Amino acid sequence: MTWRFCLSPGLQNVGAIHFFCNYEESRGNYLVDVDGNRMLDVYTQISSIPIGYNHPALMKVMTNPNNVSAFVNRPALGILPPENFPDKLIESLLSIAPSGMTRVQTMACGSCSNENAFKTMFIWYRNKERGYANPSEQEVGTCMINQSPGCPDLSILSFMGAFHGRTLGCLATTHSKVIHKLDIPSFDWPIAPFPKLQYPLEEFVRENAQEEARCLEEVEDLIVKWRQKGKPVAGIVIEPIQAEGGDNHASPDFFIKLRNIARKHGCAFHVDEVQTGGGTTGKFWAHEHWGLDDPADVVSFSKKLLTGGYYHRDELQPDKPYRIFNTWMGDPSKNLFLSEVLNVIRRENLLEEVTRSGKALLQGLYALQTQYPHILSRARGQGTFCAIDACNDATRDSIMIKARNKGLFMGSCGEKTIRFRPTLVFKEYHVHQLLNILNDVLAEHK
Amino acid sequence: MTWRFCLSPGLQNVGAIHFFCNYEESRGNYLVDVDGNRMLDVYTQISSIPIGYNHPALMKVMTNPNNVSAFVNRPALGILPPENFPDKLIESLLSIAPSGMTRVQTMACGSCSNENAFKTMFIWYRNKERGYANPSEQEVGTCMINQSPGCPDLSILSFMGAFHGRTLGCLATTHSKVIHKLDIPSFDWPIAPFPKLQYPLEEFVRENAQEEARCLEEVEDLIVKWRQKGKPVAGIVIEPIQAEGGDNHASPDFFIKLRNIARKHGCAFHVDEVQTGGGTTGKFWAHEHWGLDDPADVVSFSKKLLTGGYYHRDELQPDKPYRIFNTWMGDPSKNLFLSEVLNVIRRENLLEEVTRSGKALLQGLYALQTQYPHILSRARGQGTFCAIDACNDATRDSIMIKARNKGLFMGSCGEKTIRFRPTLVFKEYHVHQLLNILNDVLAEHK
Repeated sequence: MTWRFCLSPGLQNVGAIHFFCNYEESRGNYLVDVDGNRMLDVYTQISSIPIGYNHPALMKVMTNPNNVSAFVNRPALGILPPENFPDKLIESLLSIAPSGMTRVQTMACGSCSNENAFKTMFIWYRNKERGYANPSEQEVGTCMINQSPGCPDLSILSFMGAFHGRTLGCLATTHSKVIHKLDIPSFDWPIAPFPKLQYPLEEFVRENAQEEARCLEEVEDLIVKWRQKGKPVAGIVIEPIQAEGGDNHASPDFFIKLRNIARKHGCAFHVDEVQTGGGTTGKFWAHEHWGLDDPADVVSFSKKLLTGGYYHRDELQPDKPYRIFNTWMGDPSKNLFLSEVLNVIRRENLLEEVTRSGKALLQGLYALQTQYPHILSRARGQGTFCAIDACNDATRDSIMIKARNKGLFMGSCGEKTIRFRPTLVFKEYHVHQLLNILNDVLAEHK
Repeated sequence: MTWRFCLSPGLQNVGAIHFFCNYEESRGNYLVDVDGNRMLDVYTQISSIPIGYNHPALMKVMTNPNNVSAFVNRPALGILPPENFPDKLIESLLSIAPSGMTRVQTMACGSCSNENAFKTMFIWYRNKERGYANPSEQEVGTCMINQSPGCPDLSILSFMGAFHGRTLGCLATTHSKVIHKLDIPSFDWPIAPFPKLQYPLEEFVRENAQEEARCLEEVEDLIVKWRQKGKPVAGIVIEPIQAEGGDNHASPDFFIKLRNIARKHGCAFHVDEVQTGGGTTGKFWAHEHWGLDDPADVVSFSKKLLTGGYYHRDELQPDKPYRIFNTWMGDPSKNLFLSEVLNVIRRENLLEEVTRSGKALLQGLYALQTQYPHILSRARGQGTFCAIDACNDATRDSIMIKARNKGLFMGSCGEKTIRFRPTLVFKEYHVHQLLNILNDVLAEHK
């Protein structure tokens, strides 16, 4: 197998490029590179390909003449939506709205979604604080020069290990890698510990419950402390599974209690499903595993949903137009693709498929870590959203490169974790192919 | 003429919606609403439609089978670009790179472009400060918890009246309207006055030069003051014409001196061409009117370019991969459309067309303000990027609604300004149609 690298003078981040791809030749779960190498792809463009490469249902969107206009005339959705936009929203995003959520706002990407979700929470919080009265003259005057009270000292509580994006607001809640954060100014916002659980979860129920209790206590302490500091917590943001930070899980009980803490202290509760959403955990939203009717105030999404955006409860609707606004406010052409993805998910019962494949994958990872305990540990997952740790980062990286040379393309996260992010059309026979290659690599590993 | 409004339960910002559109039936400079009303559109989706609705060249992109894959397989560009991506960049974005700029980074939207441009300047500035050494242990440790020195107290200097986007980093440099800023936490960054010039510029050369000198002096004072405060200015961000803030112009001399001040104080100079870029001023980039070989360190774009992104000088290239990164890093399908737009601009000499139409438009606006001096004043513009002020906001809004009912759709900006943002295929006969309708409205105005 050969790997061709190309230094392109005008490209900025060539250092991060793994290889160039032939997307025309890629199909389903298989990614093809420019040299014709065909790989089982379980990283899927950082978890953003929902039903595989070149899916016929998506190709059909392109060839339907009724759709051409949505691609060539990108509207300013906030002011001049296309006639069919409400219907398209109803058949796409609103058909999968999380429990209790009646509103959705599309955005261009995950970071913009979280930035605007934060703003929605700040606006809601300040409206509560001022009793829904008009802003004072002082607020109006100071906001234009970035000063309090117009630009208030509010904060968002986040968790160590979290990843919520890399624009400046999002980045103040992201704490997964130094390379994301270094040299970028930030906000003095509270950061709580995320539970460090022991796996398999079933074997460490008591220890894990203790760890989660410790973290929840810290959350409440931080909320009180930041209120005293004059920087009240307007919202809490959390991933159902910390993804970039190393696939860190917590129990439904932890999230239920955290949601209650948010309610008790008057903070909005924002569940960031940018990576976990879209069916990969076996439910459409990972937070559905918590079993709550009122799981959150805000749920943000992107990646597998093909458009960014966020849902929120009615109560968080901004009081005036143009408070949440930008030129494009999303992209209706992405909604067309999403509608088709949802049709395929329903027609082919893909969430059941994910649950089945996920069980096989996790069982296989358990078997591998039993067979290679000096190399692998901490297999964990929900649906096909699985991960396993190597003994160190060099070993992890070496396994990944060897696997790639045998036709398996995986992603990493955290310090020494391999993460599995296959499509929703990842079947049990793909699991076996994955496990066979991984087993070959491990058997050869010195 | 009737206007149908629809309250959609799942749409967030219904209050901002002007009307629903029939984009299929819209053509060239004419936007058609759901009731079949056909309007000459000189707002063009907030200045983001480059060559008109349903342009045949863009329709062809959709029907070319070679392009299907770019739409249905959106890659993670930073790690797995398509084979043809460097070539596509060379024939699209790099073919129009501003003078002195060899690097381009695509992004999904204007805000993300500016957020990442700011980050690029912060990284460059800190690398200079630490003499290109590795970060200290203290920096590595503190950055994960949002604290200095890892997250340093650096600032971006912006101008009163500026608009650079509405995510939290961008919003700290935006100072155009209260509704953008209220209730959102911000950074203590310096804000300089933008020159308040008198129009027509030719008639107030001396007064305007004095006003510009006053603002430049203030810029230098702020740079010194913020350095003393421990929040050094890493970059200066400015629009060549303040758009959202009310179409405020400044002279080439002002920008040349500002660029020199940035250089003298070691600050990066970031020209935000999100609204001014793409040919509407008669040159592809508005900063070309300054006549500089080295106009800026960073130039950001979006809207008419169809993709967001920013150019920068080689020197601002981040030292490591993954420092500027996100899942999608733009969207190659947008680059396909941009290539075609550029072909059309070249083939049809559209920049000359814009210059010609722009002259006719500005002359016409001068005539109108002479005829209706109690209603209109301060006509100004470059190319077709023109504007005129009404005597107050109520009058402005009333003129706009009456014009819309006569088939002319315009946008507003600032407090009482009408802004003209036609496509690049806006010909002299469109100008006359516009002026006729406007004249009719003004003649009837009480």
